[in-house]
Amino acid sequence: MKHFQLDYNNMMAAAIGQKDGMPAGAIHKDKALIAAARAKVLENRGKGWQEWTELPFVDKAYIEELTETGRLIRRKFDNFVVFGIGGSALGPLAVANALLHLRHNELRPGKRKGPRFYVEDNVDPERMSALLDIIDPADTMFNVITKSGETGETLSQLLFVLDILDKALGDKAKENIVVTTTVGKGTLYNIAVERGYKVYGLGKGVGGRFSVLSPVGLLPFAALGLNLKKLLRGAADMSKACCKTGVRFNPALMGAYLQYHSIKRGKNISVMMPYADSLKFMSDFYCQIWGESLGKAADNSGKTVYAGQTPVKALGVTDQHSQIQLYTEGPFDKVITFIGVRNFRAEVKIPAVKGAGGAAFLQNHTFNELINAEREATAFALVKAKRPNFTVLLDGVDEYTVGQLLMFMMYQTAFAGALLDVDTYNQPGVEEGKLATFAMLGRPGYEEKLKEIKSAYHNEKFIVD
Amino acid sequence: MKHFQLDYNNMMAAAIGQKDGMPAGAIHKDKALIAAARAKVLENRGKGWQEWTELPFVDKAYIEELTETGRLIRRKFDNFVVFGIGGSALGPLAVANALLHLRHNELRPGKRKGPRFYVEDNVDPERMSALLDIIDPADTMFNVITKSGETGETLSQLLFVLDILDKALGDKAKENIVVTTTVGKGTLYNIAVERGYKVYGLGKGVGGRFSVLSPVGLLPFAALGLNLKKLLRGAADMSKACCKTGVRFNPALMGAYLQYHSIKRGKNISVMMPYADSLKFMSDFYCQIWGESLGKAADNSGKTVYAGQTPVKALGVTDQHSQIQLYTEGPFDKVITFIGVRNFRAEVKIPAVKGAGGAAFLQNHTFNELINAEREATAFALVKAKRPNFTVLLDGVDEYTVGQLLMFMMYQTAFAGALLDVDTYNQPGVEEGKLATFAMLGRPGYEEKLKEIKSAYHNEKFIVD
Repeated sequence: MKHFQLDYNNMMAAAIGQKDGMPAGAIHKDKALIAAARAKVLENRGKGWQEWTELPFVDKAYIEELTETGRLIRRKFDNFVVFGIGGSALGPLAVANALLHLRHNELRPGKRKGPRFYVEDNVDPERMSALLDIIDPADTMFNVITKSGETGETLSQLLFVLDILDKALGDKAKENIVVTTTVGKGTLYNIAVERGYKVYGLGKGVGGRFSVLSPVGLLPFAALGLNLKKLLRGAADMSKACCKTGVRFNPALMGAYLQYHSIKRGKNISVMMPYADSLKFMSDFYCQIWGESLGKAADNSGKTVYAGQTPVKALGVTDQHSQIQLYTEGPFDKVITFIGVRNFRAEVKIPAVKGAGGAAFLQNHTFNELINAEREATAFALVKAKRPNFTVLLDGVDEYTVGQLLMFMMYQTAFAGALLDVDTYNQPGVEEGKLATFAMLGRPGYEEKLKEIKSAYHNEKFIVD
Repeated sequence: MKHFQLDYNNMMAAAIGQKDGMPAGAIHKDKALIAAARAKVLENRGKGWQEWTELPFVDKAYIEELTETGRLIRRKFDNFVVFGIGGSALGPLAVANALLHLRHNELRPGKRKGPRFYVEDNVDPERMSALLDIIDPADTMFNVITKSGETGETLSQLLFVLDILDKALGDKAKENIVVTTTVGKGTLYNIAVERGYKVYGLGKGVGGRFSVLSPVGLLPFAALGLNLKKLLRGAADMSKACCKTGVRFNPALMGAYLQYHSIKRGKNISVMMPYADSLKFMSDFYCQIWGESLGKAADNSGKTVYAGQTPVKALGVTDQHSQIQLYTEGPFDKVITFIGVRNFRAEVKIPAVKGAGGAAFLQNHTFNELINAEREATAFALVKAKRPNFTVLLDGVDEYTVGQLLMFMMYQTAFAGALLDVDTYNQPGVEEGKLATFAMLGRPGYEEKLKEIKSAYHNEKFIVD
């Protein structure tokens, strides 16, 4: 399809041998399974937890309203801060990093196209304190995002900044806060109504990790001056490709099958390795959607399966000098996805310099040639070591291809969940930690849990100090 | 030991059950193996590739010279840029992130204690171009670091900036460059001599990933105004602890054994999860040293073993909302290291606010309490799910504890390499990719390699586009 290509030659037995490669006949053999997974996802487009599939096809008027709101925010505020965590943070972070200048926050105001942008997705006191050393809350729009409206970390951040804004701005403080949450319920919604904050609603069936194309992402992107229409057009075009029947023409269905096939053959690790700094946080986005969607103790029939594949972030060429030794010579336990970029938005030449000596062969090449040569060379070296890998190749990085890539990752995950027969959209495994945190903070009603924590096994003998 | 504790209760069968836990008798059973690994490392302290063990015990005069050089750089330059990759980048990055203000580069000059600091460890043209949009090379000290003096990425960066500096400053350009490399050989050394750059030498037996306490790290740290003596004192004290005979009193030997035992029981993934933004890049440091040192196709006797454990970076509490679902419910294939911080350098209260509703239980707690409660709650939840984990607990983050942590990670890796009987210090697996890159850039002498690349398996059928 336009601007986007998935090359899986290096997954095949013909390239890396029978032991770790995929036999040419595998797809045919599994065609019923693949068709069923496709059908399961596509028959439920827009239903239940699959409202995300329809996000690219939203009303034009809605996009125009968001774009206009973004313009007003951009005009009025020096900083835009997201308070959110997990699905409320990683989409905005990945897209902003891909589409803003790579040193956006450090550019002078005149050179910057929008407000400085911070995604605060932790409750480290040093980090919160550091942020206040560089922004003035009065000049800042805070976008508080939690789907449930109950996320403790995000609410803590809100309480912290509310107090500061109330003191600094009084009743006008409400202009500095915009809320993205489920309309009609939850603590955040209630606070917003009571205090008169503008609220962007989230569809009931849009889960956090599939929410980047909802207002969770779109509002920050609008504030940053990104082209929402182009982003959604890329997502819509990818959506069409991901509905195709033939797996050989459906990039996400093929991606899901390649990974599924690898999992079944013992590859419990999936490395995501873009060769572009702008796509670095796409790996974080992938790590959440892949890890949290597929990592499930039970399958859809309730059988204990302990499914999942551990996603690993890497960055090319940087991690060639950190991880490639392991990927090439270590256990045969991983499959690697490269993301390549054909055309970068800058060209940097390596000039000829007197006395370059042993570096002379680099001269008159460009960084552009070097980074792509290294990507291809790394894939080649992995093939020689019989390690499965495939490459997503983008023509360039812009709103359109980023929309494609996001939608590809979401569909790929949905198809993989269907192939593994797990519930892609729940996360029961995070509950226990939440309850334990409540107990440790002394929340009423959690006294029994606190007792359980205090009685956990602990022996001073097993401490080195 | 002072300020540092290793708690491995949650690795034990008593906590997580026989299937995934370590039997209380395991250490005793393996005592000969553990003693041999310890002896192998310690008998070779300071020898061969183990010069790193002696770095904390360097001459006082040397440290004073570096400190003074740092003071001069700090006075003269607005920016300090490292050109380096892998071992030349990750140590400086991890330590600077731990010890500088978390938004150091965005602080106003008067509020900043040293120059802005950039570690440029990629050849992405957009990133290089972005850097030049925010720094003036004339006001910048470039520290070019490569042990071999031949690293293509680093030399490309040097050539690029040389050309700019030559044009802007003429002969004075040499004051803006300082080189860290092996004295007496290599392209970088030759360029430095010819052009009159100041050179910091690297010991022959200090490998890149073990070089953070050599001038590779110490020069940038001095320029940033960090306390080198305190850093080395922490490292020296940890060094003493890591020489202890009894594994129960030797944190790195115990850490290595815990991981070794896990590897032998099928845990091929090692997660490093600090609960502090300041320690985020310690995970990157760990990922390199652990992945590249242990990921080896052959053991010391030449037998094919495909050894290694894949390191994974995570950050608490952030990744609770991304990865913990998988860690709790997915395959039983990982062991998790938490790094906790008892005392943060800032305290942030969660104030009481009118109308806090369902968030009321958070009020009057601190972010400090919240982040640590979540760390303990997550460890508790993992134990309930029978997932092995252990915790490194630091009293705080400062030069002393960072020195301890670095030395702990280096010794832990060395001991693990000895337990696995692999060569901890080589990296034969990166060679093939390097040669292929040379070939693709048309370097003379690599014509055969280019032919080989061009004849690699490729079928248009296996592309979705």
